[in-house]
Amino acid sequence: MDRKEFRDLASPEEAREAIASLSLEGGVERVSLENARGRVLVARLDAELDVPGFDRASLDGYALRARDTFGADEADPARLDVVGEVHAGEEPDVALEEGQATEISTGAVMPSGADAMVPVERTDTDGGDVLVRTSVAPGDNVMFAGADVAAGERALGPGTRVTPRDIGLLSALGIDEVPVRKRPTVGIVSTGDELVRPGEDVDSDRGEIYDVNSYTIAAGVEDAGGDPVLYPHAGDEQDEMERILRQAAEECDLVLSSGSTSASAVDVIYRVIEEQGELLLHGVAVKPGKPMLVGRLDGSDRRSSAGDSAYVGLPGYPVSAMMVFRTFVAPAIREAAGLSEPMSATVEGRMAAQERYGEGRLRLMPVGLVEDGDGETLIYPVDKGSGATTSLAEADGVVEVSPETDYLEAGESVTATLFSPDVRPPSLLGVGEDDPTLNRLLDRLENPRYLSEGSRPGLRRLRDGVPDVAVVAGPMAGDLTVATVEEDQSSEADPDAVELGQWSREWGLIVRPGNPDEIDGLDDLIDRELRFVNRTTDSGLRTSLGEAVADLADERGTARHDLVEAIDGFDLGLRAHESPARKVVAGEADAGLGLAETADRLDLEFVPIDKQRVRVLANPDRTEKASVRELEALLADDGTSFQQY
Amino acid sequence: MDRKEFRDLASPEEAREAIASLSLEGGVERVSLENARGRVLVARLDAELDVPGFDRASLDGYALRARDTFGADEADPARLDVVGEVHAGEEPDVALEEGQATEISTGAVMPSGADAMVPVERTDTDGGDVLVRTSVAPGDNVMFAGADVAAGERALGPGTRVTPRDIGLLSALGIDEVPVRKRPTVGIVSTGDELVRPGEDVDSDRGEIYDVNSYTIAAGVEDAGGDPVLYPHAGDEQDEMERILRQAAEECDLVLSSGSTSASAVDVIYRVIEEQGELLLHGVAVKPGKPMLVGRLDGSDRRSSAGDSAYVGLPGYPVSAMMVFRTFVAPAIREAAGLSEPMSATVEGRMAAQERYGEGRLRLMPVGLVEDGDGETLIYPVDKGSGATTSLAEADGVVEVSPETDYLEAGESVTATLFSPDVRPPSLLGVGEDDPTLNRLLDRLENPRYLSEGSRPGLRRLRDGVPDVAVVAGPMAGDLTVATVEEDQSSEADPDAVELGQWSREWGLIVRPGNPDEIDGLDDLIDRELRFVNRTTDSGLRTSLGEAVADLADERGTARHDLVEAIDGFDLGLRAHESPARKVVAGEADAGLGLAETADRLDLEFVPIDKQRVRVLANPDRTEKASVRELEALLADDGTSFQQY
Repeated sequence: MDRKEFRDLASPEEAREAIASLSLEGGVERVSLENARGRVLVARLDAELDVPGFDRASLDGYALRARDTFGADEADPARLDVVGEVHAGEEPDVALEEGQATEISTGAVMPSGADAMVPVERTDTDGGDVLVRTSVAPGDNVMFAGADVAAGERALGPGTRVTPRDIGLLSALGIDEVPVRKRPTVGIVSTGDELVRPGEDVDSDRGEIYDVNSYTIAAGVEDAGGDPVLYPHAGDEQDEMERILRQAAEECDLVLSSGSTSASAVDVIYRVIEEQGELLLHGVAVKPGKPMLVGRLDGSDRRSSAGDSAYVGLPGYPVSAMMVFRTFVAPAIREAAGLSEPMSATVEGRMAAQERYGEGRLRLMPVGLVEDGDGETLIYPVDKGSGATTSLAEADGVVEVSPETDYLEAGESVTATLFSPDVRPPSLLGVGEDDPTLNRLLDRLENPRYLSEGSRPGLRRLRDGVPDVAVVAGPMAGDLTVATVEEDQSSEADPDAVELGQWSREWGLIVRPGNPDEIDGLDDLIDRELRFVNRTTDSGLRTSLGEAVADLADERGTARHDLVEAIDGFDLGLRAHESPARKVVAGEADAGLGLAETADRLDLEFVPIDKQRVRVLANPDRTEKASVRELEALLADDGTSFQQY
Repeated sequence: MDRKEFRDLASPEEAREAIASLSLEGGVERVSLENARGRVLVARLDAELDVPGFDRASLDGYALRARDTFGADEADPARLDVVGEVHAGEEPDVALEEGQATEISTGAVMPSGADAMVPVERTDTDGGDVLVRTSVAPGDNVMFAGADVAAGERALGPGTRVTPRDIGLLSALGIDEVPVRKRPTVGIVSTGDELVRPGEDVDSDRGEIYDVNSYTIAAGVEDAGGDPVLYPHAGDEQDEMERILRQAAEECDLVLSSGSTSASAVDVIYRVIEEQGELLLHGVAVKPGKPMLVGRLDGSDRRSSAGDSAYVGLPGYPVSAMMVFRTFVAPAIREAAGLSEPMSATVEGRMAAQERYGEGRLRLMPVGLVEDGDGETLIYPVDKGSGATTSLAEADGVVEVSPETDYLEAGESVTATLFSPDVRPPSLLGVGEDDPTLNRLLDRLENPRYLSEGSRPGLRRLRDGVPDVAVVAGPMAGDLTVATVEEDQSSEADPDAVELGQWSREWGLIVRPGNPDEIDGLDDLIDRELRFVNRTTDSGLRTSLGEAVADLADERGTARHDLVEAIDGFDLGLRAHESPARKVVAGEADAGLGLAETADRLDLEFVPIDKQRVRVLANPDRTEKASVRELEALLADDGTSFQQY
């Protein structure tokens, strides 16, 4: 079926136009001054009164007739007869005659007859008289009625986004309520039987996963100036999905569904849209995000401004959903909310490594930023493949790669659009082994980023010159020449990496509490029928285990290969450093490769095999970078501070 | 008394240190995921589970053993026996044997025995078999457990400001509540008998004014990440002020008072602070903002985090209060909220005109920005004197002028710090006459700024090269040579100003409804005992009136001066264009100078005297500026569109 296979993809421009053609506007509402900040005025506000509403003394002192002070100075003061006083918030009960002055306080009404005032500092009193030791001109130290804002003046124009300063102006005019654009209401419907709301329990055996899109999109909607409404999950059960979609269409200006692009769900949406609405577009030539729907849904009751609701179907994969939302939906919401595009926050940088591509679709490539030794920005793609949820949390922005581009060369200059203007690239970028001690170290740095991909990828990326540091566990440093900080500082050295510091960690087998199988070490895995769970070859633990097995093979005079074969599960390598232990907890394994600290944390028994070094290796060109020096300093202090747990 | 005269002023640095020495922190709270956006994490969050929690099919298709497909291609597909199917959210009930495949949908659990999957597009079915027309490697199209996030991995570090992308990660981990920094609670107490809350009625005769600071500071507190609490006004009555201050100190982390720097109020605050707290600082060498207090107040109950409350006394004048708040208080609130300084949004520009100064205090000069013809930024001071409330609404940022600087030269390059990173300088800057038709015109432009200071200042500023356009009413164009757009385009012309367009308006005398005094024109003002209210000499109306009087003097063969003398109130010039009419409404005058439209608006009677032109004059160097061309176009269309009302 055509609808399932998206044969005809729309261009990004067509997608933008399709969404732009929909009415998302929420109409008008009146909000109190307390709630006006950041809202957008729908009408011009004129001053209905003068500010100040009266001629006002600017200082504490004496109100008087300027001409009575002409010629007065320190030596030859003018002597005036003091008649009465006026304080702020009082109506003057005097009218000044020639030769008279009235004591007046800051902000008080100038009495009639007075045309200027003298600050108290320039006067002395003498009985009932005041000696004025300066001469003033008419209007001196007086703020005349309307001098600040004049009645009838244009105060704020339509489209103004109200700032605290505007609130000051509105307050001065006595305005306590303003007409603003209503925030567009955006209904969010996640579909899929496998989705579970965060906070509830997931059953992984049944393939359940937490619903990522609902809250993420909701936060994105708020960022864009919209009002998100989360609807209950629609399972793949069709009537339910239809009911929820119709309800959302009635209640909202825009309905977003996600995960609704699987064949069966699409059928439902097609039917709903065809029965009460219009489908404008299906499928866009972008990656990620191809399976996107744009249409219109009639609300059976007419609560929403335009009587109907716009509809956009987002892909189910979180990264795709967010990228499509950012690129196509958020701008439309901002537009409807009356907000201008945020200051385009873009960063020029060089590609850290070559990136191949070429699918004839516009690519929205999530990227991370890192500063090299010269303070230049390097840009690297962040992509854990479709289905990944963390990619965006580890990215700073997006590089758009045109359909014509087949690959981006390393060092090629590209422009990244930051996710928001206040995104600050991480102070430190690290890649490598996952380690509890390291985690505590990272907590001491401000805004670091660490990609725990394992020791091997850490070294590879360090060689490519991407991260500031790689964290490597076990023997593996590949063919890199590693210098100490001291060696590096001695001019001769030109190493591949500089070791900032190291610590050691105890690794071994993690077994059930009380070690019921009485596992003492590797021999048991080889000689007995025990189910073992290993780590991936990327992990430093796996490497150390491999070496231990090799040593054991030498002892026994057999081939390493034979021992490996004898270990049930040696080839089953899990990426997560706690996962083997968790398999033990789940009863799916008798022993898992892991750290003493992990066993401790999960209340399991630990069978030690050996210790291994964890080394922090810096890119030699970045050793002067502030965050790298900070990390070096943290490693230098006796270490107990971060090693104990 | 020392306290009243601020003899020893602290330096700005000392003021910052004094505030930094106070504890503003609000402690820790747990918020739900929906409310986590923008909040700051207080602790590291580790992954407690693998994401995904199982090996997961990335596409719709068939799960199988990779080795069963080796060598398969379009021409020579692999034929596999289809056993069962798995959908998302289901537990597989099959275990694959060699030569078998299972139908599987996107996101479903890979059945045991399968190590890869093939998308449906690369297969055909044949009875109970599937023909696989490609070969896959182990792991192809499968996302393994923990590949996205691995249990035990460091997910988000302490100090992270939660973005929508982080919310995605938290959702994926099933986390529905996070520990964040509490927003510091900031109590706001405005003092002064003359203050009235917006929305209520002010009695100008009693010198009442609307309270500007409460809502403005509250909005500023929110901007800085704090939680504002507005307290009822404290009048100058001392017990009341004391009671409110103590209550605020008990309930808040920081108490801000404003207007509390007048001598009498200071006495109260001194007493309160001395009795239960500590005064750290009084008076700081900045302008505006000198009268500032910093101290500590003990809360009698210990609700607030540190058991006591920080205190800052802000000046009463709104501009001073906001500048002091921005410069000294907001950074401390952000710090306590765990927010980093916003991206420093600064703009380099040239001073549009010379600015004198030199009081030996750091000056925080509110400035506006305008682009000149070459797209270069001009910076001009915005200052309506102390007491003004609109200055900041008409400003874009602040230039700090050091105490040593006596004046800034025109053209001198300075750096302005924008009020916020998303401040966008106005598209068009105009100065001149206030006019209702103009106001409607401005509504059609996006983000214009108009300073209605009158025709004369408009011309002066245009000559100084500050605004894009000046709006001038009546005969006055001073000694400027004014060209039409056409003349300007003809290369010879080198005018002082270019007229973009004009309209005419009817002016005259505004009198009581029904014109009870039967006023027919100027003669009545001269020959009868009538109270008249005039406009300032800055106004184009005043100029036209002056000319009319001069003509009348010629007719009568007398001196203009004598007629002016004969008009009671001719010299009483009000700045606001509606104010004379409002004096008539108030019964304080029998006739006021004004426009037909104003009389109409206020339901008064209008006695026409003459019509005058209102001309929009552009700076010749800015005629190509987009907003100027837009204005020109608006003026060019028949005009009725914006003239009618």
